[in-house]
Amino acid sequence: MADEVILLDFWPSPFGMRARVALAEKGIEYEYKEENLSDKSPLLLKMNPVKKQIPVLIHNGKPVCESLIIVHYIDEVWKHKSPILPSDAYQRSHAMFWADYVDKKIYSLARQVWLSSGEEHETAKNKLMGCFKELEGELGDKAYFGNDTFGIVDVALIPFYSWFYMFEQCGNMSIEAECPKLVAWGKRCMEKESVSKTLPDQHKVYDLLMDLKKKILAK
Amino acid sequence: MADEVILLDFWPSPFGMRARVALAEKGIEYEYKEENLSDKSPLLLKMNPVKKQIPVLIHNGKPVCESLIIVHYIDEVWKHKSPILPSDAYQRSHAMFWADYVDKKIYSLARQVWLSSGEEHETAKNKLMGCFKELEGELGDKAYFGNDTFGIVDVALIPFYSWFYMFEQCGNMSIEAECPKLVAWGKRCMEKESVSKTLPDQHKVYDLLMDLKKKILAK
Repeated sequence: MADEVILLDFWPSPFGMRARVALAEKGIEYEYKEENLSDKSPLLLKMNPVKKQIPVLIHNGKPVCESLIIVHYIDEVWKHKSPILPSDAYQRSHAMFWADYVDKKIYSLARQVWLSSGEEHETAKNKLMGCFKELEGELGDKAYFGNDTFGIVDVALIPFYSWFYMFEQCGNMSIEAECPKLVAWGKRCMEKESVSKTLPDQHKVYDLLMDLKKKILAK
Repeated sequence: MADEVILLDFWPSPFGMRARVALAEKGIEYEYKEENLSDKSPLLLKMNPVKKQIPVLIHNGKPVCESLIIVHYIDEVWKHKSPILPSDAYQRSHAMFWADYVDKKIYSLARQVWLSSGEEHETAKNKLMGCFKELEGELGDKAYFGNDTFGIVDVALIPFYSWFYMFEQCGNMSIEAECPKLVAWGKRCMEKESVSKTLPDQHKVYDLLMDLKKKILAK
């Protein structure tokens, strides 16, 4: 029996994009189900009763939640091509450290750059740029964070590339001027079909986020 | 050549305890180096330049940072006994979900229960108890979160058992009255030598945290 793979997701979510990029890297066919986050489906609430968040990967009826755990799972179950995590335990711990760094730092700062104003906005903007610089330092002259291979840190971070235009517009800053290697990395990743077919256009993300911002701040 | 294993740590840290419990489970000899967090050692700053935090496991000169990543690493490198992560990919993703839940929720709420007052304190207290109830639901009637085996979720959560007396004193609440199965689990874990020899006495932790609280709030 063929595997049944379903992804519960929301298109501009960087977390959902991680799962989509990993599935595309492995060439796995799956059913994509778009969620309305202001009216979550009974399936989402059943499959992720604790967090009630997307993305959820449902593999033969069983749910896997949390984007980085989903990417791990995909890499372990579909081993036949495009390894995402290094096979060496030390290299794997190093990659997991940076994926975890992206996970814990970038989204919360991104959210503040997007939604806050005044001093909080300025602080978040500077901190976000500080993180990008730290990531650029880790990238160095490598093609990808995973060296010659597109790996877990690349999968964790690349979705935020689709938010770069929003950061630049809201933060009145140029990421390319301060982190040219990181922007070159983003463009390099976009040459991969798994990434270019997954990531939405930066202007489309910007328009949606500005629209959402009005609704969130009006509450 | 024998492995050289060093742990940079701070004794009341629940994150450090995770590494210590995992090392004890595997029966690994190592050199413990206590850090003074208000005057961090050059070794810590060199080994974890990004986060500058304990614990750091140094294995043959190479650093592994972040407590859950350290536990993963220990489990992968020393496979000979006491597996900490399930071998099945789905079971592993399920265990990682709950370890991640503990990681993202418990410490920040614990910190608020410890240091805040008024409404913030009350909210944190209720949220922390809500998390404990959710964890008790996941535990159910199993001996450990890892079913019959002491696993990654047990390793992630058990250090906070040494903070239970502080929660009860600061929060004026009884965890046992609301989560009897969770407290029974904590006592069961304490019957394991890897845990009982690692976890400090709850009163000793309480005294230190109260002392630290005065210093933090006086700043």
